[in-house]
Amino acid sequence: MSRNSKFSNPHAIALIERYQPIWAVSKAMELSGWDLETFMPPKGSFARGNMTGQLTALIQKMYSDPHLLDLLDRLQESQDLTPYEKGLARVMRRETKVYTKVPAKLMQELSELTTRASLNWRTAREKNNYEIFKSDLGKIIELTRDMADHLGYEVHPYNALLDLHEEGFTVQDADEVFGELRDPLKVILEKAATERDSPLALETYDQGSMKMAEIELLTKLGYDFTRFREDTSAHPFTVGISIGDVRITTRRKGYDFKDTLFSVLHEGGHALYELQIDPELEFTPLSGGASMGIHESQSRFMENMIGRSREFARGSFEILSKYLPFLRNYSEEEIYSYFNHVKPGLIRVEADEVSYNFHIMIRYEVEKQLIGGQAQVSDLPELWSELYKKYLGVRPNNFSDGVLQDIHWSGGSFGYFPSYTIGNVVAAQIRYHAMRDIPDMYAKVSDLDIAELKQWLKEKVHVWGATYTPKELMMRSFGEGYQPKYLINYLREKYL
Amino acid sequence: MSRNSKFSNPHAIALIERYQPIWAVSKAMELSGWDLETFMPPKGSFARGNMTGQLTALIQKMYSDPHLLDLLDRLQESQDLTPYEKGLARVMRRETKVYTKVPAKLMQELSELTTRASLNWRTAREKNNYEIFKSDLGKIIELTRDMADHLGYEVHPYNALLDLHEEGFTVQDADEVFGELRDPLKVILEKAATERDSPLALETYDQGSMKMAEIELLTKLGYDFTRFREDTSAHPFTVGISIGDVRITTRRKGYDFKDTLFSVLHEGGHALYELQIDPELEFTPLSGGASMGIHESQSRFMENMIGRSREFARGSFEILSKYLPFLRNYSEEEIYSYFNHVKPGLIRVEADEVSYNFHIMIRYEVEKQLIGGQAQVSDLPELWSELYKKYLGVRPNNFSDGVLQDIHWSGGSFGYFPSYTIGNVVAAQIRYHAMRDIPDMYAKVSDLDIAELKQWLKEKVHVWGATYTPKELMMRSFGEGYQPKYLINYLREKYL
Repeated sequence: MSRNSKFSNPHAIALIERYQPIWAVSKAMELSGWDLETFMPPKGSFARGNMTGQLTALIQKMYSDPHLLDLLDRLQESQDLTPYEKGLARVMRRETKVYTKVPAKLMQELSELTTRASLNWRTAREKNNYEIFKSDLGKIIELTRDMADHLGYEVHPYNALLDLHEEGFTVQDADEVFGELRDPLKVILEKAATERDSPLALETYDQGSMKMAEIELLTKLGYDFTRFREDTSAHPFTVGISIGDVRITTRRKGYDFKDTLFSVLHEGGHALYELQIDPELEFTPLSGGASMGIHESQSRFMENMIGRSREFARGSFEILSKYLPFLRNYSEEEIYSYFNHVKPGLIRVEADEVSYNFHIMIRYEVEKQLIGGQAQVSDLPELWSELYKKYLGVRPNNFSDGVLQDIHWSGGSFGYFPSYTIGNVVAAQIRYHAMRDIPDMYAKVSDLDIAELKQWLKEKVHVWGATYTPKELMMRSFGEGYQPKYLINYLREKYL
Repeated sequence: MSRNSKFSNPHAIALIERYQPIWAVSKAMELSGWDLETFMPPKGSFARGNMTGQLTALIQKMYSDPHLLDLLDRLQESQDLTPYEKGLARVMRRETKVYTKVPAKLMQELSELTTRASLNWRTAREKNNYEIFKSDLGKIIELTRDMADHLGYEVHPYNALLDLHEEGFTVQDADEVFGELRDPLKVILEKAATERDSPLALETYDQGSMKMAEIELLTKLGYDFTRFREDTSAHPFTVGISIGDVRITTRRKGYDFKDTLFSVLHEGGHALYELQIDPELEFTPLSGGASMGIHESQSRFMENMIGRSREFARGSFEILSKYLPFLRNYSEEEIYSYFNHVKPGLIRVEADEVSYNFHIMIRYEVEKQLIGGQAQVSDLPELWSELYKKYLGVRPNNFSDGVLQDIHWSGGSFGYFPSYTIGNVVAAQIRYHAMRDIPDMYAKVSDLDIAELKQWLKEKVHVWGATYTPKELMMRSFGEGYQPKYLINYLREKYL
């Protein structure tokens, strides 16, 4: 790494030096993950699994290095640190936390368990048989609670897990956010929900043409393909190999083109974050998002606040209809309403922007009770069904569309789901502030001109990387914490 | 790695265990190298360079680990080793040799020098100005000679460098091989050389169609795309990420389709080696070719002995002409003679199979003199010109097509070039033995049926990986060492 003005404390400089091999192995793993989902021949998967296991172990070893931990102590004890140096110490401490606080034996046990559980979850889901997965899940919850005990927490063990994904976010915060959202969203959902599907959802398209439409849209939106690329994979994702090499993927099912369009905009929002981080933070642990929730706010903002706007429906028409000629048979209003079709359902990843938060609320309540010990794995299907009935008015008639729906728990990921709603909340908050600072923001979206908006997002959010905690960043850039009212107002305005 | 029958010595097992992170980082680097040449956005190159540097340093560190070296000593001292265990010790010793024998300071100096020199070489070549590169080259030769001294050698310092690429191959071997080839090849070249280019070289093609022809040919030849893929890059290459994930690349210039066709077959030959190594050797240092020369023999065999045969011209016609319809205007004889067009020129990578070995002979003589101190960098252009005049009857009128032609020296690679001729020699040798064991080998090539041949190559060469030294492997499978007579006979038969 070339020296720069942001780090002058000798311990910070030494720590960044020691971080370089960790950075390199982490990035090699990210590239390998991208390759696995895009181009790897299927029979490469066994060896690739071995590679990932070895590289993960190397990273753990490097993060547990006493010299690194000693430098980190010295850095944290230093006076007069710049915000970047403070951020470096904070993020490094977080990265090393699991390795230093949780016994290696427990992590190993959890790792072996979740490898097996992921396979069992897959079988259970295919066979619609919760029993196949239940005992693994029970054991995962038990070990995860042990992990929370080692990590330490106040009030509720779930706080230790929330903090892993969203620094400083607690059960109290989550209860407040979901509490504020619950009733107003219920009202909006009841008014906005429609039974009838849009005929546009049935229109089929040529995948090559769709791909060209995406590339043209992304180019028009200012994505620079000398630093960026788009590929195809089963599940869309974004990866930042470096500030000069950010990649998104999408999938195309051949009909219902909004599925692809909005996944491209969603991942495009994530990508923009990675592309606009201060290059001087590259090769340090600060070159990443402030948190899962803040990262998700960028994707949700681009997908929903921009992509699902009337102005975007208008602005994108020319490009889209060039490649999807059936669009010429529909009015702007029909396209807009297709983009914003609201229909409560059982499946989280297919949910519209109103019902989506209920899916998260349900998972949050379930996780909190499971980790807190108020619910047992045997209670889970009934608890799940009741909550779906209560919030979305639907009840799964099988396990696969119910408790077996998401992969997260089988991999031991608890405390992650709330990030999605934080993303939605912050996205609406950003929309409010952006519209104040850029009054003609939506007018420009009609011309697909988001240059000023991108610059604004860069200054307010992206450029800082992980320098500040999510809460600090929010206070610094918007003068307030997570405020659900903006999401409620945005959805009210749009759907009522 | 799962335990297998090939390794039972406890030191061997422990050594393989210690090798796992080295394996993982090496494979991550290979994947990264593939990505760099195929899909990486151009602005990713700076960070990618840093990644490569860090991962290389990690590998060096792991290979220099005293525990690993101690295990290696114990393994080499053990009695009753299986051939695989002996091979493991031998290959590991070779891998660690540079790190243990050459001072880190010298390697560091050489690495910094070659990074700079590669840039200077590029500029020098663009500007056709040898002076820009000359002093770097002189310094590289000096440090390389130091390296040879540390590595140790008998008779000639160049032997230490030859051995790095072709285990056990010496100046004496090389003098013998080139000595035997020189006069007979000169006679063949004089007879076979033609001035007139084939009109087929000027036929243009659609790159997408050519790609489809390649895929169909490779499929017909039995390449299994669940373990294999083909992509596009500026310079063709092969990479074995694992036995279930082998990748080749090619380039397409839009005319002179044999350039692409034969690079696909060439890389396909390398790929076949990687695909057919015994899966029980995977995740050990034995999962690779026996040497550069033996690896090259597989690519040359597939490219020249199979691809440039009359039977292949016949057998591939149906597929090729489907995608390259202009082929229907030419006779089989015209296509065959286009495939085997012989014309001495200045550029190694464009050379036909007769003149090719003279390009290598020249580089070998030059390298031997430079490393031995008989020639200085200031003598180089004149020496180069004289040798080209003598062997190929042509004389470069600029440096770029002369001494600045190849990238190798700027990267500190001396002793590599002879592998190419070893490849040609062994390829012809394999052809002889294969024809004895499979009398209808060429008849089957007319149907693009190489199943039996692949099985034969697997048993004779591929399955062993690096278990045996190249000389041992040759003796074991063919009962003889490198024998240039087969290449001479093959070329005589074909061109006289």
